[in-house]
Amino acid sequence: MKLKNDLLLRTARGEEVERPPVWLMRQAGRILPQYRALRAKLSGFKELVETPDLAAEVTIQPVDELDVDAAIIFSDILVIPEAMGLTYEMVEKKGPWFPQTITNQSEIDQLVVGEAAAERLGYVYDALRITNRALDGRVPLIGFAGAPWTIFCYMIEGQGSKTFSKAKKMLYAHPKLAHQLLDKITETTIAYLKQKVAHGAMLIQVFDSWAGILSAEQYRTFAIPYLQRIAEALPDVPVTQFSKGAWFALADLGSLPVQTIGLDWNTDPAYARALVGPTKVFQGNLDPCQLYAPAEEIAQAAQQMIRSFGRKHIVNLGHGVYPDTPLDGVKAFVQAVKAYAYSA
Amino acid sequence: MKLKNDLLLRTARGEEVERPPVWLMRQAGRILPQYRALRAKLSGFKELVETPDLAAEVTIQPVDELDVDAAIIFSDILVIPEAMGLTYEMVEKKGPWFPQTITNQSEIDQLVVGEAAAERLGYVYDALRITNRALDGRVPLIGFAGAPWTIFCYMIEGQGSKTFSKAKKMLYAHPKLAHQLLDKITETTIAYLKQKVAHGAMLIQVFDSWAGILSAEQYRTFAIPYLQRIAEALPDVPVTQFSKGAWFALADLGSLPVQTIGLDWNTDPAYARALVGPTKVFQGNLDPCQLYAPAEEIAQAAQQMIRSFGRKHIVNLGHGVYPDTPLDGVKAFVQAVKAYAYSA
Repeated sequence: MKLKNDLLLRTARGEEVERPPVWLMRQAGRILPQYRALRAKLSGFKELVETPDLAAEVTIQPVDELDVDAAIIFSDILVIPEAMGLTYEMVEKKGPWFPQTITNQSEIDQLVVGEAAAERLGYVYDALRITNRALDGRVPLIGFAGAPWTIFCYMIEGQGSKTFSKAKKMLYAHPKLAHQLLDKITETTIAYLKQKVAHGAMLIQVFDSWAGILSAEQYRTFAIPYLQRIAEALPDVPVTQFSKGAWFALADLGSLPVQTIGLDWNTDPAYARALVGPTKVFQGNLDPCQLYAPAEEIAQAAQQMIRSFGRKHIVNLGHGVYPDTPLDGVKAFVQAVKAYAYSA
Repeated sequence: MKLKNDLLLRTARGEEVERPPVWLMRQAGRILPQYRALRAKLSGFKELVETPDLAAEVTIQPVDELDVDAAIIFSDILVIPEAMGLTYEMVEKKGPWFPQTITNQSEIDQLVVGEAAAERLGYVYDALRITNRALDGRVPLIGFAGAPWTIFCYMIEGQGSKTFSKAKKMLYAHPKLAHQLLDKITETTIAYLKQKVAHGAMLIQVFDSWAGILSAEQYRTFAIPYLQRIAEALPDVPVTQFSKGAWFALADLGSLPVQTIGLDWNTDPAYARALVGPTKVFQGNLDPCQLYAPAEEIAQAAQQMIRSFGRKHIVNLGHGVYPDTPLDGVKAFVQAVKAYAYSA
């Protein structure tokens, strides 16, 4: 498909561009009145994820309403553990909950892995196809998955946690078991992301939401090798690795065969550039809370951020946009970026 | 009072010592069977905090059971917002909850501040006095408070949060109001800590549990100046500043007039030393989850950590010990440190 706006892909491929592209993590969601209206009619979050026409509809809403430079398919990282055999519920105001978790070898042995698991997620591939048909090349469509370590956290813990101490306990107490599970998650994630690319995802982002609770050494042992395998398995599209809170692993992240590294708002661009090296593109990293400020301050902050990154930059927040962010704040942010022009 | 073991204080004052002292954040708590037995008889957590004889008893339990080099008074950082006028409840398995929070100027105006607030916390000062009498100089007694930013988070948000986006929103949307509230918390915290020192606290630790959610610039604006005031107000005892997750603020923390900087387990000692400079003592930073490993691995990890810090080091975890940590793991950790001897 010929794209009318390919700024995101040109930037991710390292080409010279006229301004940085902009999109927001969680742009398809509660910040939009259209989303809230649709969501109110449904039985729950999973109905939206699992119904391709609806997932496509909310994927496109922010392109219409915010005029961002990319769409990201509406889905959830937890479809992977579900496809592997652990169903989850999304409990309103509490988050995900898995009735079954992984505690021992035999439970790991029983998981469905790789293509056999990935083929259970046809509703995601259908949603990608429907979205691209409806987008008709207006902007590129991003696909995503959770990083193996983050998926591992949920499969062990069964829910969100402040410390994920059960998941980390397995790294210390049963490291071989941990590697077995990480390997199976990785194999499944690769099969899933290949299907996503085959069905129209033009860039893949891997979210390691719980990277920040590991030490540098643990991240090198239990995360980086699996991220490496995922990136190597996707030679046909640019890959963005976003390891939230992993400031201590920036040099290791810089060695991954990915095009783009996502940064959270704590991380100074110059600091990251020094560790990651000159070739990668960065994505980020405005504090989502900046969007609570008055519109003119948001615009200033966006411009200042763009200047501090220089070239090789995809504008985004340093985390998903918070659900109660005023729509005017989000629009002020997007418009400020779109009005920016790199000086020659 | 003449201390029989003053290793912690000598280390905090920068003196040459034979081995690093060791204690654990949250050592008085659920890891100890004695604590759980006492706690089971009580109506709730706050009864323990507010009853000086009981608070003293659980403060001393880890000195008896674990043979650590310091006691830390059993209390809660949330006694400060309560003394200022916002009562809290400790909801079992959920954490703190404030029926009233701060949303506007008039609510800030109505807060009780400084000595008037601090004098409401007589039960803490009584607990310090009783503890020291019972300890009879076996080890030094540490007092503590939450940092203004962290207390601010709870006063705005009213409960724990993954993002504390309401608290951060005030920094962006109403920065003057935020500074007013931070100022009042600081004044109260100073009055409180002076009383603690007057009643027997020999070292003060300031916990900034939510430091890691701010940007470097915000931390410089909304946290460091208040930490500076607190440290300057306590010339008679060593002060430890523990700003969890504030890797981006290490240079600023190094400029504070405190003796010791606490480090979390993500932070490499050499990296911290380069930013903080040569004079400060470090405290930390074993991953609490390391204590789930077999005893011999815990001992190895403790020794390796001590070597990586070199001198000027108070051994601790990089976070409070987790409640389900095996007692044998904790003991293996303490014993490994106590068996260590710095080479000449």
